[in-house]
Order: sequence, then C-alpha cells, then structure tokens
Amino acid sequence: MATYKAPLREMRFVLQELLSVDAIAKLPGYEEATGDVVEAILEEGAKLCENELMPLNRSGDEEGCHYENGVVRTPKGFKEAYKLFADGGWPALSCAPRYGGQGLPKVVSLAVEEMICSANISFGMYPGLSVGAYNAIEASAGEALKALYLPKLASGAWAGTMCLTEPQCGTDLGLVRTRAEPAADGSYAITGTKIFISAGEHDLTENIIHLVLARLPGAPDGTHGISLFLVPRELPNADGSLGMRNAVRCGSIEHKMGIKASATCVMNFDAAKGWLVGEPNKGMRCMFVMMNAARLGVGIQGLGIAETAYQSAVAYAKERLAGRSLAGAKHPDRPADPIIVHPDVRRMLLTMRAQVEAARALAYWVGLEGDKAAKHPDAAAREAADDLVALLTPIVKAYFTDMGFEAANLAVQTYGGHGYIRENGVEQLVRDARITQIYEGANGIQALDLVGRKLGSHMGRSLRRFFHPVLGLIEAYQGDAKMAEFVLPLAKAFGRLQQATAWLAEQGLRDPEEAGAAASDYLRLFALVALGYMWCRMAKTALQKLADGGTEERSFYEAKLATARFFMARLLPQTGTLFATLMAGKKPLMALAEAAF
Amino acid sequence: MATYKAPLREMRFVLQELLSVDAIAKLPGYEEATGDVVEAILEEGAKLCENELMPLNRSGDEEGCHYENGVVRTPKGFKEAYKLFADGGWPALSCAPRYGGQGLPKVVSLAVEEMICSANISFGMYPGLSVGAYNAIEASAGEALKALYLPKLASGAWAGTMCLTEPQCGTDLGLVRTRAEPAADGSYAITGTKIFISAGEHDLTENIIHLVLARLPGAPDGTHGISLFLVPRELPNADGSLGMRNAVRCGSIEHKMGIKASATCVMNFDAAKGWLVGEPNKGMRCMFVMMNAARLGVGIQGLGIAETAYQSAVAYAKERLAGRSLAGAKHPDRPADPIIVHPDVRRMLLTMRAQVEAARALAYWVGLEGDKAAKHPDAAAREAADDLVALLTPIVKAYFTDMGFEAANLAVQTYGGHGYIRENGVEQLVRDARITQIYEGANGIQALDLVGRKLGSHMGRSLRRFFHPVLGLIEAYQGDAKMAEFVLPLAKAFGRLQQATAWLAEQGLRDPEEAGAAASDYLRLFALVALGYMWCRMAKTALQKLADGGTEERSFYEAKLATARFFMARLLPQTGTLFATLMAGKKPLMALAEAAF
Repeated sequence: MATYKAPLREMRFVLQELLSVDAIAKLPGYEEATGDVVEAILEEGAKLCENELMPLNRSGDEEGCHYENGVVRTPKGFKEAYKLFADGGWPALSCAPRYGGQGLPKVVSLAVEEMICSANISFGMYPGLSVGAYNAIEASAGEALKALYLPKLASGAWAGTMCLTEPQCGTDLGLVRTRAEPAADGSYAITGTKIFISAGEHDLTENIIHLVLARLPGAPDGTHGISLFLVPRELPNADGSLGMRNAVRCGSIEHKMGIKASATCVMNFDAAKGWLVGEPNKGMRCMFVMMNAARLGVGIQGLGIAETAYQSAVAYAKERLAGRSLAGAKHPDRPADPIIVHPDVRRMLLTMRAQVEAARALAYWVGLEGDKAAKHPDAAAREAADDLVALLTPIVKAYFTDMGFEAANLAVQTYGGHGYIRENGVEQLVRDARITQIYEGANGIQALDLVGRKLGSHMGRSLRRFFHPVLGLIEAYQGDAKMAEFVLPLAKAFGRLQQATAWLAEQGLRDPEEAGAAASDYLRLFALVALGYMWCRMAKTALQKLADGGTEERSFYEAKLATARFFMARLLPQTGTLFATLMAGKKPLMALAEAAF
Repeated sequence: MATYKAPLREMRFVLQELLSVDAIAKLPGYEEATGDVVEAILEEGAKLCENELMPLNRSGDEEGCHYENGVVRTPKGFKEAYKLFADGGWPALSCAPRYGGQGLPKVVSLAVEEMICSANISFGMYPGLSVGAYNAIEASAGEALKALYLPKLASGAWAGTMCLTEPQCGTDLGLVRTRAEPAADGSYAITGTKIFISAGEHDLTENIIHLVLARLPGAPDGTHGISLFLVPRELPNADGSLGMRNAVRCGSIEHKMGIKASATCVMNFDAAKGWLVGEPNKGMRCMFVMMNAARLGVGIQGLGIAETAYQSAVAYAKERLAGRSLAGAKHPDRPADPIIVHPDVRRMLLTMRAQVEAARALAYWVGLEGDKAAKHPDAAAREAADDLVALLTPIVKAYFTDMGFEAANLAVQTYGGHGYIRENGVEQLVRDARITQIYEGANGIQALDLVGRKLGSHMGRSLRRFFHPVLGLIEAYQGDAKMAEFVLPLAKAFGRLQQATAWLAEQGLRDPEEAGAAASDYLRLFALVALGYMWCRMAKTALQKLADGGTEERSFYEAKLATARFFMARLLPQTGTLFATLMAGKKPLMALAEAAF
C-alpha cells in the first residue's frame, strides 16, 4: 500500500536550518509566525493529513464522485473530513485577519498544502480552489463583495471555483464566448458553458462562488475583451445568509483518468446573476493573480505526490525479497535479499529523493520570497522578491509536475507487477499526477511563459534575481575544498544555462519560433540548475552542521551529502543533452510540412 | 477519439524497400512468403484490426472482465471478435504446417502483431499467450504432447498461458514453491498458487493450456530445481475431444490500472494433472524459449501503442484551434490556428514519430534475423542471426515499452485536458502501456540481461554482430556528402557506446555492481545508437529513391529525411547525458546506507 508520513524533519531542515524561516516574523503582519508556531502548525497538519485525508485517498479513487440531476456527491468520508478541515481553521491559514483569517505567511500554507497533496490530492482540490477564489476577490473586487464573500471563504463555509475553460478553448482564452449582460441593479446576467471546472459542484459546503470569465456587450475580440465576474450558486442576502438559488447548474461531471474524487464539472450559466470583479475588459489581469498562485499550488501537488511515491517505493524496496546483492548476499538468513540492495532499484529511489528534497527547498524559498513580496516594508525588496517569484513560478509548475509524474512511475516500477494493481495504491499516484502536467497551463505553456514573458521582463531584471545568487554561491565556494564536488558541477551546468540564455535572447528577438522551439528544453535546463543550486546550499548547511559537531544526527546530514552527490553525478548531467538539443534550433521541428504528419 | 489506420505504406517501406523481405522466400520453408503474399496478409490484417478490434478497445476498457465463481467473462464483443480472428486463420500464421499452421515467417506475424497491439492490446494478450505456449511446447515437449496440443493451439480452438509468478516471487523465479508429484501413469499432480496469469481464465476458447513452473520432489533449491509442466484446464481425450475438468481453477482476477479487458488471474492448482515438458529441473531453459519470443512481443506492444498515440495526437493537433503561429497567422480565416503550427507541439509529435519509425525498422530487422536463425541452411548464418536476436531482444523489450509509454503520454499532453477524459481514449493508452514496462521482466531486468548476459556472451560475439554493421555503415558513408548529416551524429553516439562498452567490460568483471549501476543507462544508450543506425539506413534508402527520380512519392521520402534530421538533432544527443551518468559509476548509488532511505 502507498504509505505517507509527513516529512517533518525534512521540512524543519529546509525551513529552519536552510532558509531561517524565523526571520519572517520580522515582517510586519507576520509577527506571530515564529519558528515554534510554524513547527506546531506543521505537526497538527501532519496529523490531519496522515490520519484523516490519507485513509480516504484510495476509497475516494474507487468510488469517485456521483452526479445526479445537477447534484454532485463526493465520495464517502469526504464531507466529514472537510468538516474537520474547516473546523480546524485550515482554510483560513493564510487569509487576512480582517476577514477572519489567521494571516500566516504563505510559506507555511505551502508546507501544509504539500502534506495535503501527499495525502489526498483530490481532497486538496476543493480548498485549493477556494483559496484561489479568495485571492482573486481580495486582489480585485470592490469592498462590498469582499466584505460579503471573503469571511465565508476564509471560514470554509463556502467554496470557490475558477471558470475559464470552454469547449472550444482552454489555453487560448481569447476565444471565450460566455456573455455578460448588464442588469439595471448593477449586476450582470451571465450566460454560457464552462467545462473542466474543478469543484464546480459538490456537497462539502453550503455555497459555491464561481469566478467566471465572460464578455461584456461590444467587448473587443481576444483577451482584451474579457471580464471577470463573481457568480454565487446561492445568492446571499446582505447578512451572509443564503437567499435564492442562482441560474447556474452543473450539467455533468467528467469521467477521468485520475483525481476521481475531485468533481470536474460542466457548468451551465443561464442568465445567472453575477457581479463584476475588477474593471471591465481587464478580467485576464485579475485572473492572473489567481493563476500564478494556482500554478505554484499545482507545482506543490507534483512535489506532494513525489514524496508519497518515494516513501511508498522505499517501504516496498526494503520489504520485497528478490535476488541477491551483486556484491554477495546481504541477508543470507532470508530466502533472498530485499530489492533495495540492487543498484538499479537505488537509482530509481535516489532519482525521486534527490529531486524531491531539492524541489521542496526551492518551493519553500519561492514561498518565502512571496511573503517578502507581500509584506516587506522596503519597496525595492518587495519588487526584487516579486521578480524572483514570477521568474520561478513556471519552473515550479512545470518541472515539479513532471517530477511528480516521474516519481509516481518510478514507484510503480519499484513495485513491479504489484504496482499495476489498483488496491496497492501506487498506480493511482500516476493517474492523479498526470493532470498536474496539464491543468493551470500545460507544461509547454509554462515554458513559453518562461522564455516569452519572464526572461525578458524588465530588461532581464527578473532573471538577474536568480542568476546573481547562483553566481555568488559559485564564486564564494569554488575554492572551498569540501564544497568543490558540489559547486563545480553546478558551475558547469550554470555555464550552459548562461550560454543558452544569451542564445535565446538573441535568436528569440529575431524569430519567436526559435524561442518556442527551445522553450521546453530550456525550462528543464533552468530547473535542473535551480535544483543544483539548492543542493549546493543544502550541502553547505549540512557540512556546517557536521563541522559544528555535537549533533546526534550525523547520519541525517551525511545522507544529505550523499543525496547531493547523487544529484550532481546522475541528474545534473541532463543539462548537457538539453543544451545540445535546444541549441539545435527550430529547423528540425519546423521542416516537416503539416500534410506530411 | 484515439484513431488508428494501419500504417501499410510505412510497413511496406521497411519490409520491401529497406529490408528486401522478398529475399526471405529463398529460405527453405518460406518459399510462399513472397512480397505480394506478405502485402496481401498485411492488408487483411489491417481490416481486422481497424474494423473489428479497434472498436472494442474503449468499450473493453470501460467494461473490463468479470469474475464469478471461477468463471471469467471477457467484455462484450470479444468473443465474437476472437471467433473472427480464429476463423480467419490468424492464430496459425507462423505455426508449423504439420500442426495446421501457415508456416509464414515470424517477421510477418510481427507486423500483424504490431497492428493488433495498436488496435487493442488487451485483445492481443489472448492469442499472444497462446503463441507463447505453442512455441514452448513445440520447442521442448515430447511428440505425443505436440501432436495432441499444437493443432488445437494453431487453430485457436484452445488458448495457452505462462504460469510463472507466485505471490512471493516474480523476477526471482528461484523462489517458486509450486510442487509437482509424480503419478503412476507418468503424469504429475501440480499444487500451488500462481498470480498475475494473463488469460488464465476466459470465455474465448473451449480449453486453456497452462504452462506451469513447479518443483519435483527433492529438486535442488533455486532456478536449477524448476521444471516445466503442461496443465490443461479440460483434460483432452486422445482424439482431442474434451474429457474431464482438471483441478485448476481461477480464484480471482486483478483490478488493474489498464489492459482491463485482459483477464489477469490468480490460478489455483490443486493436484491438477499435468505432463512434464522437457527434462526435469530444466524448466527455466524451456521457459526461456517462450520468454525471449514473449519479450520481443512485449516490445511490439510498445511499438503498437506508440503508433496509435502518434496518429491520435496528429489528428487532434490538426483539428484543435488555439493561438496563432509565432511566425504570423497561418489560417487568418479561422478563429485561431490548429495547434500543429506550434513548435512545442511539433516537438511532441516528432518525438513520437522519429522513434516509432526507427523502432519499426529495428523490430522487423530483428524479426527477419529470427527467421534466418530458424531456417537458414547455413549453420554459421543461423548462429550469427541468433546472436543478433539475442543481443537486441532486451533492447527491443525495454526501449520500445518506455517509448510506448512516453508516446502515450505525449499524446495525452497534445490533447491537453481533453486527453485526461476517459471517453477520448488516449489516457487509456497510457494505462495500457504502463504494464509493458513491467511484465516479461521489468525493464531494469532487461538492462541486467543485456550487460550481464548478452554483452559478454561467446566472448563478445553477439555484440560484434551489431557493432560490425554499424561500423561498416559509418565507414561506407562518412565521406558521402548527402549522408554526412546522418552518419556523423551516429558516429559520435557510437563512439560513446564503444567507450561505455569497454568501460563496462572492464569494470563489470571487477565488480558486478558497477555493471548493475550502469545497466539502465547503457541499455538506453545502446537503443538510441540502434535507432540512429536504422535512421541512417532509412535515409540512405530515401536518398536513393529520390535520386532514382520518377517517383510520385517524393514527399514520402522527403518526410523520411526530415524525420531523420529531427532524430539526429533532438533525440540522439541524449546519448551524451547517458554516457556521462553511466560513467559516474556505482558510488553515488551505493553510498547511502539502507537505513538512511
């Protein structure tokens, strides 16, 4: 069976020892987020995820959601688990205190999200979408809408959705057809069909608040004619009590490869009453606030699944007996050795481990920078932090979700035939992980976002926010005998990234198809350098801890160094091929005539 | 929806133009297998696969198999399709004429198998296992068993299975516990439990013949104490009519990630009557005959799925509109361009295409060599052909199945969110493909077979059977201006393979764990060189056809060259990273203590 224990020691290493999360309590508004508080929250979160959410993961997949006559029933146990979740105050974790939230830093909710995604990604979709809706309303809606809706979302009494995709368009939202007609009372009548709406309808909350992209009459074509509307399923009275049912209805749910306990709905809006959020025709801008946070969240789903895949594979590899160590029997008293003795099994386990640990460090670093971007008193520091988050968001989304899918598959491979059997729970990780590479902007779109928007933004300012610390680390430690084995491979990979970046900047300006042809390989190259950078920082921390002596956890830090060495020797060299293939240019991709495919 | 038309033109290119399949009719016993006959068979096979098997693929996945009280019911339509299949003489294609077979070359049945796997891999499991059983009986059983069983298997009236795996062992068959007690009449009483038995029980045939690994009383431990037995479900009378039910019973079927229309059974043998096949304690040797053919067959499953994935993705990419070409709108009259204009979508499509076409060429080449190994009048030619087949079998099995899974995932990614929806049929390809990387020896085991058995076999004789033609081709064409763009990248990759091989030979002798640590990367490196070699041969053929002029199919051959260029520029460079990572040695894999995982 798939197994999961929240990796609290790993989280502590990253938050406290690597990133000194304590410092966050110096930011105005985060005074209460001391190391002790963060630790206590993670421990409580771990209990919830291990004891309540994980046990529903398998049964939720088998049962799936049920649709009947506009109503969606979540699998057995989800309603009760959601009640525990809401009663525990988890939806409010990073919501503003003035709307009933706990006002904790995003990095803390990120760590909790990771645990939720490890335990039950389908369950996590419901509160995840609500957070997205909360963020969009908080960032763009007027005060009246905020006052009415945000407390209900923060308490978890109501849930939220993002209604973007339509049958004819997903990636290309310029093709949205849903219409919004102004009504006399200042509201709008929304009409159209949205598909693939996660949490569009369910039985967990008394109300669901849809954020809907639609066109006002006479709006320009394309993305510049799209506006954002808030459309509640039940129209609330001014006091927050529920009034009439609105004209929005779930038409059906999808039968999907995975995340079967997450209801994916067709939503029909039939002159449903809604309110404008933000300015007319500026809906895409409002939505981007929500989408960027959501993209980081999807990256965290990849990380969460990868952690569970790793833990499950390790447990099986220690228990399953087959063959003998090639170096001679390790357990001559047993009929065979556990498969963890085999180099190829270790290759699979370490491939997961070395990516997961660096990905967690990178994600939490981005999370902390996000908190700085929100709360730092200095405008320049806020801007710098925001640049870094914007730059790394597509990398976290795309690379982490590819990693989650790869890890899930490596877990299945470790299990062998038993991994293919549903009841053992690891094949579900593969099916669940698969969607994360697609939704919130398919990974190819993330790559285009990186090369098309982020690289050149502010004349390369965002890029420098990452390149400078990497260069700084390389310069600081390249002469350090103990760090050389980590820093030299990073320097080599970083050299490739610098060269590819320069090439892209030149070619991409001349011919955007060159940038498009290089994008996916470039994103992976960038991501590997980012993970390599985090491994160097982690190795430095581990070496320091070992040098300080007196620690009872020498093996913990030694394992960090061994895993860092694996990353440098076995994963970072992928940058060589990625560099070669992206530098091959667009011609091999574009030469074949459309008709010849 | 997933779509499939048998790629007859592609098959003709490989069989006739590249491999000159006509020559096979010169081998004794294959006189009837002229080019025309082969062509006619493939055309008939295409109709069966497109019209009968493909339409049952989606419904078979949704319905799955049903188990009740020892009986297994296949999904709706499978019985009728199997009857058409058997009535059409398809089971007998490569069976010996003396047992009612058509005695056609294996390369022909390989091409038909590819089409079956493209259309419906679950369906293909039933006859596929029967062929395996046929081969094992033909190769190892006594005349009486052959006379009684082979005609029934060749006609498709009876089906077969391979009963190897037990709950405690799959890869490590030395741990098999099933027992065989000799009876007075020369038969044996077989007792034990086998799991993961494909086609172990079903309603397609009137009898099922199990080939079962079991231990005789007092047999030595490990694989040297295993014997092979033939255990029919219904005990036949001497005239082939059915007699009593045997004491073998299906205890349950597995609920799996995919290939849901293929019944995966727990089989309980309760003193079931069986007959020894081959010599006592030599069961593994007999089984290897069956397993090697089966491994090629599983590789073909990967190829078949990859072809369907490619075709489906191309169809969708030509039809789905989103965004505009980065080089300016290609279809200004439509609301957006089809997504095939985007470089990153082409990257996905060409990644499938460039692998599928070269893999088909490699597979059919191996198939032809297999036919030579079986029928060539010259013993040295038979041995040489057999060496090549043995060498390339683990590569075909492992690389092709990884490719099939990758292609299926690329198809899903091309479809975006629509690829995740079950009714569209491409996510099924992912789930179906996933098992091919596991069964018939997980791909890590294939890699160990390559480095541990095949590389050194006969003092490197097998290896030379592949290295010599590659070297010959490089030497012949490196000065050819038109071939240089293909041959030079191959030469570079081949240099890496040669160096890695020398390193492995030296290190592996000293320390088998070094070979184990390098095995998976080495297999991929080898496979990429093999595909690169086939691309060079195909490019040469295409250049020749174009130079000959007069062809009305210039675009066909030009597409071959464009795809070859893509392979050289975008896929073959993976050999760089594989070389670097495998040469990093075992230390990064073995350093971490078991307890630290």
